[in-house]
Amino acid sequence: MTETTPNPAGNLGDVAPVLALVDEEIEQSLARLFELLRIPSISTDPAFKQECRQAGAWLVEQLTFLGFEASLRDTPGHPMVVGHNHEAGPDAPHVLFYGHYDVQPVDPLEEWTTPPFEPELAEAPDGSRIITGRGAADDKGQLMTFVEACRAYRTAGRKLPCRVTILFEGEEESGSPSLIPFLTANAEELKADCALVCDTNMWDAQTPAISTGLRGLVGEEITITAADRDLHSGYFGGAAANPIHILSRILADLHDETGRVTLDGFYDGVKDTPAEVLEMWDALGRTAEGFLGDVGLANPAGEKDRSVLELVWARPTAEVNGIQGGYTGEGFKTVIAAKASAKVSFRLVGEQDPDSIRAAFRSHVERRVPADCSVHFSPHGGSRAIQLPYDSPMLGTARAALSEEWPQPAVMIGMGGSIPVVGDFQSLLGMESLLIGFGLADDRIHSPNEKYSLTSFHRGIRSWVRIIAALAAR
Amino acid sequence: MTETTPNPAGNLGDVAPVLALVDEEIEQSLARLFELLRIPSISTDPAFKQECRQAGAWLVEQLTFLGFEASLRDTPGHPMVVGHNHEAGPDAPHVLFYGHYDVQPVDPLEEWTTPPFEPELAEAPDGSRIITGRGAADDKGQLMTFVEACRAYRTAGRKLPCRVTILFEGEEESGSPSLIPFLTANAEELKADCALVCDTNMWDAQTPAISTGLRGLVGEEITITAADRDLHSGYFGGAAANPIHILSRILADLHDETGRVTLDGFYDGVKDTPAEVLEMWDALGRTAEGFLGDVGLANPAGEKDRSVLELVWARPTAEVNGIQGGYTGEGFKTVIAAKASAKVSFRLVGEQDPDSIRAAFRSHVERRVPADCSVHFSPHGGSRAIQLPYDSPMLGTARAALSEEWPQPAVMIGMGGSIPVVGDFQSLLGMESLLIGFGLADDRIHSPNEKYSLTSFHRGIRSWVRIIAALAAR
Repeated sequence: MTETTPNPAGNLGDVAPVLALVDEEIEQSLARLFELLRIPSISTDPAFKQECRQAGAWLVEQLTFLGFEASLRDTPGHPMVVGHNHEAGPDAPHVLFYGHYDVQPVDPLEEWTTPPFEPELAEAPDGSRIITGRGAADDKGQLMTFVEACRAYRTAGRKLPCRVTILFEGEEESGSPSLIPFLTANAEELKADCALVCDTNMWDAQTPAISTGLRGLVGEEITITAADRDLHSGYFGGAAANPIHILSRILADLHDETGRVTLDGFYDGVKDTPAEVLEMWDALGRTAEGFLGDVGLANPAGEKDRSVLELVWARPTAEVNGIQGGYTGEGFKTVIAAKASAKVSFRLVGEQDPDSIRAAFRSHVERRVPADCSVHFSPHGGSRAIQLPYDSPMLGTARAALSEEWPQPAVMIGMGGSIPVVGDFQSLLGMESLLIGFGLADDRIHSPNEKYSLTSFHRGIRSWVRIIAALAAR
Repeated sequence: MTETTPNPAGNLGDVAPVLALVDEEIEQSLARLFELLRIPSISTDPAFKQECRQAGAWLVEQLTFLGFEASLRDTPGHPMVVGHNHEAGPDAPHVLFYGHYDVQPVDPLEEWTTPPFEPELAEAPDGSRIITGRGAADDKGQLMTFVEACRAYRTAGRKLPCRVTILFEGEEESGSPSLIPFLTANAEELKADCALVCDTNMWDAQTPAISTGLRGLVGEEITITAADRDLHSGYFGGAAANPIHILSRILADLHDETGRVTLDGFYDGVKDTPAEVLEMWDALGRTAEGFLGDVGLANPAGEKDRSVLELVWARPTAEVNGIQGGYTGEGFKTVIAAKASAKVSFRLVGEQDPDSIRAAFRSHVERRVPADCSVHFSPHGGSRAIQLPYDSPMLGTARAALSEEWPQPAVMIGMGGSIPVVGDFQSLLGMESLLIGFGLADDRIHSPNEKYSLTSFHRGIRSWVRIIAALAAR
């Protein structure tokens, strides 16, 4: 941190009329968000291909109305949305705003208390107002905070204070297969002074946060095949290989009794977290009981003797995200399955290399598959961890602008989730990212009953109005 | 074995006209079997309740036509079919024939090359003729061998040589919940001199077999619950308990590195197989390569240093029949599931006690579930192993009759599968069972593309014509 007060060069008073318009127009802003939330743009399921395109087209229409030169850009997968508004002139700073219009699948559907694609403004048990629906927080509600901030400037008859390029992706929830080719092919067009990425959380409902560390991600699906057909466990049980047994052994052996991941070389490139950073996180007062109690748990399950914040912000993991084999319907079927499969992902930190982790995992698996059985690997994504410098000037400017808007000053935190685009912006466009989002820990993203706080949406819009003004005034 | 030649007191020449009628009428017999196979009587799936009843009613109609006093008998689950034909008179021996009209589920449906409920007479790759469809072998094809044998006697204008009671169950594939209450409530009506149970295999296509040992079965479904919702593996990974990890550890720990089951007291009541029995089985010449090679495997996967026949006929097992947790759809979802579940079954031998095995398993599971997670147990079935005396006179009579019909003499074998009704007949009706069936090891029962050999069906009918004549002549 180099700056802790509002940027002295800026004239934040300028934005007061824009902020007032945000307040006046919040119901219309919400109605527009609901339009977007009604489109079931599930990118990982090919059945929703057309709906993904529809969501992208809707955004192009919005941006065009706001004076952006915007278009839907085809990829081998779902299309990108790109828009440019450079009315601030060539000397203004240039920001690239990134969000994604695709959403996670909704199963198990029966656990939703409101239909996932029929958003509502509801009252939470604590009395706060929330926006319900798949994508409310991840990431449609978040990306619309920026779109609506741009709209407020326009409604106020003002130019955007920065040159703004917008990039909305439609494959973030399915491994972003088209992102790197697209960034590479359009590097000149997309490169800006910095990126603004809105896909992260606040520290709590009062306290905005800028995420300065992001874990990387490696995903791998494995399928073990034993016999060439499902077998009767009476006739063959005790003699025939059972792929569920083999898979269980593979997965059980991923962790030792202290919770450490056992893959060869897994911790290569993992540095100890500096003591002062650990102290800063301890000062946030988030205990294991508080963090896990929110979701019905009590005891940290990972590596022993580390705080929960260190576990989720600064330590690597191996997690099984899904497993399936044999008969899983109602009742019982005494079968020995021909196949069993699991989806496994690794969160990476520091300098852990995705390719090496993938290779170590495959070796771990292959050593445990008997000679007469086989394994098929299917890779999903691969991204290194990101760590932003704590002393970046832009970081200070944005932190000050955020602190003006919210009840509590903005804090710098780690992020357990992976946002591969941040690494791609760094490596392909040479551009740092400011990770500023308004999600809350209980937003249930990726789960049934996803929601977004109305306050997050409203103050999120106001925050962007302030941030782009502050960045322009630097 | 006390008898190895056709029973001298019998007059097997008597059955020649009946056998000739079996041959003449085989196409009509097949047509009737197809009618039954077209009824999708999947007992484990409540959606097929009406179809189960329909299959039972169809059988009542057949038996009534054959001079049986037959009826559909309601239970809390699927109905029983009971029929009596005592025209042989009070001095004739009395047999109870048992089969089941319900079938296994058909998933994965896409692996069937012919629709499971549209039976066909097809040609197998080896040139033999087969009957395709779910239930062709297990157990509709088998039970119809006896029904058609009765029909041949009637068509020949002959009385059945034994007093015959028939019991067809509709819940065999779903744990037979109504069987014990029904046998108990109707013990007087159902008790006979011996039971004939037709739900087992031949030794090979040339060699009929009588199964003298049957493994018992204990099933248990476990569901591990960790957090109260599905979690994002980025935000919570490394700190939150993952129920798939817990389940994998539970299942991996079921076996030690020598393939033995690790549950406390699991091998209590398991006796070593007598050396002479092992020698008899060795003489059958079924190697691991042959037994497992048929299904695409090569190496025995269970306890070390035992023959495959001993493993499947005389050793107890623990097998995971199904597992499910987290995201299992297409693509990837970085979720930590709230729940994960598995269906586990144990095959029992000797004097292993089902209740003790279930308790030892539950204890094994509970010790591995962390304090802030929970487990739910759902029991499925429970039956002890059965061992018939090798020197039973009825066994010798049936073996001789079978040996007359088939190219090779009948052998006595073990059975890896469980047929709980045999234990129930023993304990509730004081009645031994002769386990005579005409299935083949490659019939794919419980799997896609189930089939039954036309020869099994045809000679199976002829076998019962001979067996009931021989039993009557003793």
